[in-house]
Amino acid sequence: MKPATNRTRQNDPEGFRSRVLDVAAGLFQVNGYHATSIKDVMQAASASGGALHHHFPTKKQLALAVIRDRVAPAVRDTWIEPVRRATSLGKGVTAVFKAIAAGLAARESVAGCPLNNLALELSLSEPELRGAINEIFSEWQSILAQRIGETGGGARLDRAKRMEAAAFIVAVYSGAMTLAKSAQSAAPLRSAAGVLARWLRERDFAQ
Amino acid sequence: MKPATNRTRQNDPEGFRSRVLDVAAGLFQVNGYHATSIKDVMQAASASGGALHHHFPTKKQLALAVIRDRVAPAVRDTWIEPVRRATSLGKGVTAVFKAIAAGLAARESVAGCPLNNLALELSLSEPELRGAINEIFSEWQSILAQRIGETGGGARLDRAKRMEAAAFIVAVYSGAMTLAKSAQSAAPLRSAAGVLARWLRERDFAQ
Repeated sequence: MKPATNRTRQNDPEGFRSRVLDVAAGLFQVNGYHATSIKDVMQAASASGGALHHHFPTKKQLALAVIRDRVAPAVRDTWIEPVRRATSLGKGVTAVFKAIAAGLAARESVAGCPLNNLALELSLSEPELRGAINEIFSEWQSILAQRIGETGGGARLDRAKRMEAAAFIVAVYSGAMTLAKSAQSAAPLRSAAGVLARWLRERDFAQ
Repeated sequence: MKPATNRTRQNDPEGFRSRVLDVAAGLFQVNGYHATSIKDVMQAASASGGALHHHFPTKKQLALAVIRDRVAPAVRDTWIEPVRRATSLGKGVTAVFKAIAAGLAARESVAGCPLNNLALELSLSEPELRGAINEIFSEWQSILAQRIGETGGGARLDRAKRMEAAAFIVAVYSGAMTLAKSAQSAAPLRSAAGVLARWLRERDFAQ
C-alpha cells in the first residue's frame, strides 16, 4: 500500500468515507447501481482498493451507506423538511415541486429522483437495500400524512385515509419524475404539480 | 458453427428471435438491463453467440427490439386497448388498475412496470433507447387524452389540458407502481386507484 493512501486513511477517515459516498451516490444516480463497479468508484474517488474495502467491504454495504447517508438526507432536504416547515401543506408541496423543476431545468439532463431510481433498480433483487429504501418512503409519507391531518379536509379523515392521501402525493411526484426523466425535461413535473395543487385545494388539504 | 445452430436459424429464424426477445425481456424486467449480460441471454435462451449476434449485433439493439416488440405490446395489452375499448374512462382506468393489482398479488414478487423500469434505467444514459421509450409514453397518453376529450369534463378543456390530465393518470400509475415495487405489495396500487377514481369522477372525466 502506498504511504499516501495510508496517510489519508489515518488522518481523515471521515473525510475519506464522505468523499467515497459522494462519488458513489453520484455514479449510482447517473449510471445506476449495477452499471457502477467498485473500480469506477475507486477511480472517481481516487481511492485505493484497500482503503475502500476497509470502509465498505462489499458493494452492497456501500449502497446501503449511500441510501442511508446520502439518499435519505437528500429526501429530507428536498421534501420532508420543506413540507414540515411550510405555512400550509398546499404551499409546501407546490414549493417543493417548483424548486425541483427549477433544479432540473438548470441542468442539461434529468438524472431523476435518486430514491425512485434505486427503488426500481434494487427493490426486487436486493431485499436488504429495499428495507432501507422503504424506510425513506415511510418517513416521507408520515410527514405528509401529519400535515394532511392538520388541514380542514384531513381532520375529517382517519389515519388510514390520511396515509392513502400522503401516498398519492408521493406517487404523483415519483411518476412525474419518471416522465420527466423519460422526456429529459422538467415540463412533466410542472404539469403534474398544477394538477396536484388543484387536487389538494379541492380535498381541502391545501390550508 | 455447429450444424444444430445453423439448422435452428435456417428453419425458424422468427421463432428463434421471438424466444430471445421473451428471455431478454424477462431478464431485463427482473434484473435490469445493465445487470443482464449477453451471456445471460444466451444461456437462458439456449442460444449460441453467433446466432444471437446474427439477430442482434449489439446489446443495445437487443434492448431496442425488447422495447418495441415486447414492452410496447405489453403496455398496449394492459393499458391502451382496455382504455380504448372501455364503456367509460372511469371504468377503463379502474379495471386496468384492478387487473394489474390482481396480477401482482397472484405472484410472489413485484417486478414492476417494464416501461417504468427501463425508463428510469436507460433514459439518461441511452438516448436511442429513450426515444423508443418515449414513443410508448406518448401513445399511452394520447389514448387517455382522447378518452378524456369524450367526457363531460374533458369536452370543456383544450388539447393541452387534456394531455396534462392524461399525463397525471400515467404519473399516478407509474408512481404507485414504484411504491408497490418498493413495498413488494399490490396495496399501494389499490390505494392509488381509489384516490384516482374519485379524482376522475370529480373532474367529470369518469363517464
